[in-house]
Amino acid sequence: MPKHIDINEAILKKNDAIASELRQRFADNHVYVLDILASPGSGKTSTILATIDALRDEFNIAVIEGDIASNVDAEKIKAQGTAAVQINTGGACHLESAMIKRAVDVLDLERLDLIIIENVGNLVCPTDFDLGENAKVMILSVPEGDDKPLKYPGVFQVAQAVVLNKVDTLPVFDFDREAFEGSVRSLNPAAPIFPIAATKGDGVDEWAAWLASEIRDVQ
Amino acid sequence: MPKHIDINEAILKKNDAIASELRQRFADNHVYVLDILASPGSGKTSTILATIDALRDEFNIAVIEGDIASNVDAEKIKAQGTAAVQINTGGACHLESAMIKRAVDVLDLERLDLIIIENVGNLVCPTDFDLGENAKVMILSVPEGDDKPLKYPGVFQVAQAVVLNKVDTLPVFDFDREAFEGSVRSLNPAAPIFPIAATKGDGVDEWAAWLASEIRDVQ
Repeated sequence: MPKHIDINEAILKKNDAIASELRQRFADNHVYVLDILASPGSGKTSTILATIDALRDEFNIAVIEGDIASNVDAEKIKAQGTAAVQINTGGACHLESAMIKRAVDVLDLERLDLIIIENVGNLVCPTDFDLGENAKVMILSVPEGDDKPLKYPGVFQVAQAVVLNKVDTLPVFDFDREAFEGSVRSLNPAAPIFPIAATKGDGVDEWAAWLASEIRDVQ
Repeated sequence: MPKHIDINEAILKKNDAIASELRQRFADNHVYVLDILASPGSGKTSTILATIDALRDEFNIAVIEGDIASNVDAEKIKAQGTAAVQINTGGACHLESAMIKRAVDVLDLERLDLIIIENVGNLVCPTDFDLGENAKVMILSVPEGDDKPLKYPGVFQVAQAVVLNKVDTLPVFDFDREAFEGSVRSLNPAAPIFPIAATKGDGVDEWAAWLASEIRDVQ
C-alpha cells in the first residue's frame, strides 16, 4: 500500500539522474517523447487515440500507459494496433523515471519516432518528475471548469502545450474560454493552447501538426 | 516546492495519531465531519454549496477548503454566508490531519453540527490519510467516465457514500450508468450511490437526507 508525502531531495535527485540517461537514449535514437498530464476523465486516452490516428502514417508510435491499477487504457491502445506497455504504479500518484526505464527497455527505440506516456490521472504529483521526455503536455477538459489554472498552477507552468478537450460540450457547461486562456497565458505565455474534441476529431489536425513539427525537429 | 513519494510508515503513524485526537474532539462536541474526495472539476464546491443550502436550516455548518494554491473555493463558500477556513497545502496533493487540526483550532466546535472538508482534487493521495472524519465521500462526475472505479479503486473502497454528479449531462456523454454502478458495487457493496446535478439541484434532497441522518446519529 504505497502512499505519498512531501518529497525529499534524494528521491528527486535519483529520479533526475535516470531521466537524464533516458533523455540521452531518446536523443541518440531520434525518438520524441511526450508526457501527457491531466485529471482522471479529461480524455487522455481518447486524445492519444486521436493523435495516433493523425500521425501513424508518418511516424512509428508506441504508448506507455501509467495507471494506479488496471490495464483498460493499454487494452484500448492495443485494440487500435499500436504497441502499448502498461505500468501499474501500485498506488503511487505519478510515474517516475525508473518506471519509464523499465518500460523503454522492452521497446525497440531504433524503430520508433514517438513515444507517448500517459501519466497517472493527477494534476499535482506528476508535475515535478522528469521522465526524460521532450515535452509535458497538459490536457484540461471543458467539464472540469475554467478556474483550474488558478487552482493547479504548477501543471500549467511546466506544460509545453495545453490541450483543451471536449470543446464540443461548451454549450452545456458554464466555461469562460477567455478567462481560461487568460489564466493559462499569465502562468505560461509561451505554451500554445489547442481546443479539441478528441472523440469527434475537432481540432485534432492543428494539435497533431504542432506535435509532428516537434517530432521532426529531433529526427 | 514540496513533492510526493511513496510514504513511510512513520508519516502515516503520526497522521493517524493526530487524526485520533481530532476524532475524539469531534465526538466530544457532537460534530459530524465529512471529507470530500474527487478529481479536479468534478463539482466538489458546487456540491458543497448545494448541500449547505439543503441543510443550513437544521444544522450549523463550517467548511475547510483544501487547495494546492488559491482561495477561489473558500471565497465561493464565504459568499454564501458560511464560515470557511482555507488551507493551502503549498503543493502537496492531499490534506493531512495536522493541517485539519490547525483549521479546527479557529472554529467554535461547540456551536457546529457539521464540518465539510473539501480535500485537494485528487483520486489517489487523499485516500490513505485519516483526518479524524466520520465519513469520506467520493464525488465522480459524469464527464469523467464510467471506468473510473476500475482505474482508481482505492478511493471508491474507502468511501462511505458515492455521489455521481452532473447527471444532467448524461445525454451528451457516453456514460454507462449500469456499468458504473456495478463497478462501485463490486468494490464497495455497502456505499449508497447518489445521482445528483449539484448546480441544478437534481437529487440533492436524497443526498442531503442521507447526510442529515448521519449527522443526527452523532448528536
